[in-house]
Amino acid sequence: MKNIYVIGVGLIGGSLALDIKKGDPQSNIFGIDINDTHLEEAKQRNIIDAKADYAALKNADLVILSIPVNKAVEELPKILDAISETTLVIDVGSTKLPICEVVKTHPMRRNFLATHPIAGTEFSGPKAAIHNLFQKKTNIICEVEKTAFKLQEKALQLFSDLGMRIRYMNPEAHDKHIAYVSHLSHISSFMLGKTVIEKEKNERDIFDMAGSGFESTVRLAKSSPAMWTPIFQQNKTNVIETLDEYINNLKRFKNYIEQDQFDDVYNEMKNTNHIKEILKGIA
Amino acid sequence: MKNIYVIGVGLIGGSLALDIKKGDPQSNIFGIDINDTHLEEAKQRNIIDAKADYAALKNADLVILSIPVNKAVEELPKILDAISETTLVIDVGSTKLPICEVVKTHPMRRNFLATHPIAGTEFSGPKAAIHNLFQKKTNIICEVEKTAFKLQEKALQLFSDLGMRIRYMNPEAHDKHIAYVSHLSHISSFMLGKTVIEKEKNERDIFDMAGSGFESTVRLAKSSPAMWTPIFQQNKTNVIETLDEYINNLKRFKNYIEQDQFDDVYNEMKNTNHIKEILKGIA
Repeated sequence: MKNIYVIGVGLIGGSLALDIKKGDPQSNIFGIDINDTHLEEAKQRNIIDAKADYAALKNADLVILSIPVNKAVEELPKILDAISETTLVIDVGSTKLPICEVVKTHPMRRNFLATHPIAGTEFSGPKAAIHNLFQKKTNIICEVEKTAFKLQEKALQLFSDLGMRIRYMNPEAHDKHIAYVSHLSHISSFMLGKTVIEKEKNERDIFDMAGSGFESTVRLAKSSPAMWTPIFQQNKTNVIETLDEYINNLKRFKNYIEQDQFDDVYNEMKNTNHIKEILKGIA
Repeated sequence: MKNIYVIGVGLIGGSLALDIKKGDPQSNIFGIDINDTHLEEAKQRNIIDAKADYAALKNADLVILSIPVNKAVEELPKILDAISETTLVIDVGSTKLPICEVVKTHPMRRNFLATHPIAGTEFSGPKAAIHNLFQKKTNIICEVEKTAFKLQEKALQLFSDLGMRIRYMNPEAHDKHIAYVSHLSHISSFMLGKTVIEKEKNERDIFDMAGSGFESTVRLAKSSPAMWTPIFQQNKTNVIETLDEYINNLKRFKNYIEQDQFDDVYNEMKNTNHIKEILKGIA
């Protein structure tokens, strides 16, 4: 694939651009972004070769749509309007049902592949783009049967070159499960950060007491609100379900402490310890 | 200090033993533990030189008490009964008020220094003991004025050799603030792990979808229930307060999502983002 257009030159789009260029130095990487400062930065960092616009998408072999999910559902139909018959378009968003819905009757639906690379950091923007972000990570592909076979093949070659393993899932199942293993983690981390900051706001040196445990648990609270707000919006029903269950579990745990049921406190933790085995294999 | 007795040869006691021995190969490190398997393991791993018992504590220059906090309050008075006039005894527990209370009228109170090294990992037992665990970490010392001046000096030299920075605090303030920056993180992490495991227990391969974000947020759920249950018990009032505030923050966030107040969702996250700056300097 010679002409690659990256729409949204941030953490994910930028990191994909870096790896693609490294794998094929002859490819031309074009950047499209509503934030011109980010585009300039991406150019200076050699993440993209040049800026472009939608009119140029007819020349694209590959379009990577890596913008917040509320913008992605607005832009994807326009992108599909602008491409050629042989262009592959992929998105990388953390919700999959709305994006599959918005293009289901589009005449170019077969040029689109819905994907979710489970990779990232808590940082954002072109400066967050890094090499090898996708190595050994899972990429979830939704509604693969709706994409043209030749374009599926192209996409799978790309993901293989990036070092990713593939899982197939329908968008409903994706959005439901990802609410548990990703979206809830972000909310629990943001609210932990909020709770501690509120309490200690007048005693900043209290954070000297914080160890690596707090740092690890609150890490995701550094994430981009512009990226995460529309994810929670699009996955509202599933996210609310996870929050209800999480809050209920916290209340039960608190109740055990209040009632001095410390055997139950012990067992709650003991029964969760096997997360050790479950997590083996995650980065 | 030539004769060092480590009571509880786990993560913290074992790691202290390793660094002390490395700093002074002539020192004799003795281990005391109710778990004989741990003692044998500690010997095989060269964490301790030999096993010992309380009758030998009269020969101790330094006693390190590194056992669960419920056991520590039971053992400390007996230890102080057994030592000599020149022995320094330190504990390393995550709660400081109960341990200071239990020895406040003990005739050997001046031989004891209450400390809390903010260091650790989610692992436990002698196999978790590692070198340099305390390098650049904070050690909180409580009621320093109640310890004999010469023994304070010995302790400070030890902590300096281990690479630690010192903060002084009264036990009430310690227990209140540590509930926020440590104890709450552990509960939020355990309950996150529980919520996700419960939901996905019949679909184990869903954890293929989990990324490094989930892994980081749930890391503390691997921690030892035997260590943490008595911490929550001893710090019950403060822990319940932090849980009330955390649960209320989660409910408010959920309510914003339910009511489609996504500007508020955004602002909640935006206002917490400055955790980035606060965390600078933590390992």
